Amino acid sequence: MTDKISMFHGAGGRESEELVKEIMNILRNVSAWNGSNDDSAYMKLGNNYIVFTTDSFVASPLFFPGGNIGKIAACGTMNDLAVMGATPVGLSLSLVIEEGFPKESLKKIIHSINTTCKSENTPVATGDTKVMEKGKIDKLIINTSGIGIAKKIFNKKIYAKDKIIVSGTIAEHGAAILTERFGYKTNIKSDAKPILKEITAIKEFIKQARDPTRGGIAATLNELAKKNNCGFVIDEEKIPIKKEAKKICEILGLSPYDIASEGRFICIVSEKDAINAEKILQKFNLDAKIIGEVTNTKTVIIKTKFGERILPMPSGNLVPRIC
Amino acid sequence: MTDKISMFHGAGGRESEELVKEIMNILRNVSAWNGSNDDSAYMKLGNNYIVFTTDSFVASPLFFPGGNIGKIAACGTMNDLAVMGATPVGLSLSLVIEEGFPKESLKKIIHSINTTCKSENTPVATGDTKVMEKGKIDKLIINTSGIGIAKKIFNKKIYAKDKIIVSGTIAEHGAAILTERFGYKTNIKSDAKPILKEITAIKEFIKQARDPTRGGIAATLNELAKKNNCGFVIDEEKIPIKKEAKKICEILGLSPYDIASEGRFICIVSEKDAINAEKILQKFNLDAKIIGEVTNTKTVIIKTKFGERILPMPSGNLVPRIC
Repeated sequence: MTDKISMFHGAGGRESEELVKEIMNILRNVSAWNGSNDDSAYMKLGNNYIVFTTDSFVASPLFFPGGNIGKIAACGTMNDLAVMGATPVGLSLSLVIEEGFPKESLKKIIHSINTTCKSENTPVATGDTKVMEKGKIDKLIINTSGIGIAKKIFNKKIYAKDKIIVSGTIAEHGAAILTERFGYKTNIKSDAKPILKEITAIKEFIKQARDPTRGGIAATLNELAKKNNCGFVIDEEKIPIKKEAKKICEILGLSPYDIASEGRFICIVSEKDAINAEKILQKFNLDAKIIGEVTNTKTVIIKTKFGERILPMPSGNLVPRIC
Repeated sequence: MTDKISMFHGAGGRESEELVKEIMNILRNVSAWNGSNDDSAYMKLGNNYIVFTTDSFVASPLFFPGGNIGKIAACGTMNDLAVMGATPVGLSLSLVIEEGFPKESLKKIIHSINTTCKSENTPVATGDTKVMEKGKIDKLIINTSGIGIAKKIFNKKIYAKDKIIVSGTIAEHGAAILTERFGYKTNIKSDAKPILKEITAIKEFIKQARDPTRGGIAATLNELAKKNNCGFVIDEEKIPIKKEAKKICEILGLSPYDIASEGRFICIVSEKDAINAEKILQKFNLDAKIIGEVTNTKTVIIKTKFGERILPMPSGNLVPRIC
């Protein structure tokens, strides 16, 4: 274990997982909250669950094709609630701004947050604003935390043969950030958007769900496998991905399975419900797809044209500051 | 209105107020939440209120006499809930860390958060960790958001002659940060601590309460005056302040009334309850004191040995990055 924090610790892969574990070991405390390893924590409150999540956004650049840091700050936190089965009821918005930051850019970002929140009827309930000296912070960091209410938490036991569905093409958010960062000209746009409506449409079928942000579907599937003490096998040919997003990853030597989406989710449904759930999701997005199934092994396997290989938990620098 | 963000916009005074107003004007949205001008937002949920708040901490230096950024991150958010009448039920903890930051320092900070939370039986429910490249952020930023539950919100109408009580000596947190920043040797320690127990002890008497953090009691009283469309008159001789804290402010040309506390609150109680509330608070802290009363003017007046003067809303750079 190194004695200094590295970029690896923030990339959403294995090193992030280890750091969070170390922090959580200190914070172990008697708690009425569940879900410390999930995207949100939840607690029974009367007949409902109250669901609580937080995310700080350090995306660079702040503006990219298809959105800006404000849009992903609003989507990211609402989506972390949605994948637990909750409907967001309020967000907090905390800004840490670099001295000299243009007010026009700030306003654009706040307008994006407002538009995104309005589309989901989720108000910004409370906020905070801090400023740091020029050169002491890279432009802007946004924290959004969120409260949601759920009748039921998506936390059903999963079994071998249960199916894995992805709600649309993957890796476009990460690819959009990369095209902007490297000055490529492409048609790729960030996929950032709220996913609550899609999730609600197949609520009755979802056993568990996650949004594949930092670390992509590789991190998400490995986390789900660990949590459920199971494995997955997915079929490369079925994974929806746009050619251009794939190409950008190839050029940069990255695996598209390690790259973030900000408007997609992965869910596990029972075998009997899978086709139906896929059909319903395809009304929202034609690319929604069953990509594989649960196994009794403890590894995530990807079947390719050339055979099978392990899809490991991402590790190393991945793409820093993607969200 | 300038077109760039300045340090003034983050100092908790008049310029901060104006920026927040501009942001809130964009975010106006139909909302079930109240309290957008308070320390926390609140919403009816069954027979209770759910209370929600957020704060990002950018304190520099990270360690100072009497505490560190972790302690104020835990206290600050719990105290923002407490001054609304709520009992905290969970915090979120979001870390943004500079690459190369020593893990030992991080662990010390997390231990402080844990100790503070344990003392109040308030768990960290959920978290997030991001890393930024060396030189892109000054060491560490912490966001804590918090959820509390309240039977009643401290939001009673206030009238002329109601009394103002401060729960202990003021400005010590700010003074401690300043001594550390300038390398002074003093006995001043940050006053950072949770205030829930004191507040609970006089719950039945509190009409409204605030914690005088950024901008000190000057900002707090001016905000309360504005919100309630009233004025205050306070008596300088009665304001509890340690000689050393006063001295540090004098040396630096600062008003102690503009300087943050992180473990104090100001509350308004009716005239008939004031002596009783003061007595109860003095069991916790001998320096708790009735310092003045509500008036029908719309200004905050301070009576000094030399006569009366207006205590204005602080403005200008104040002390940056005090919390």
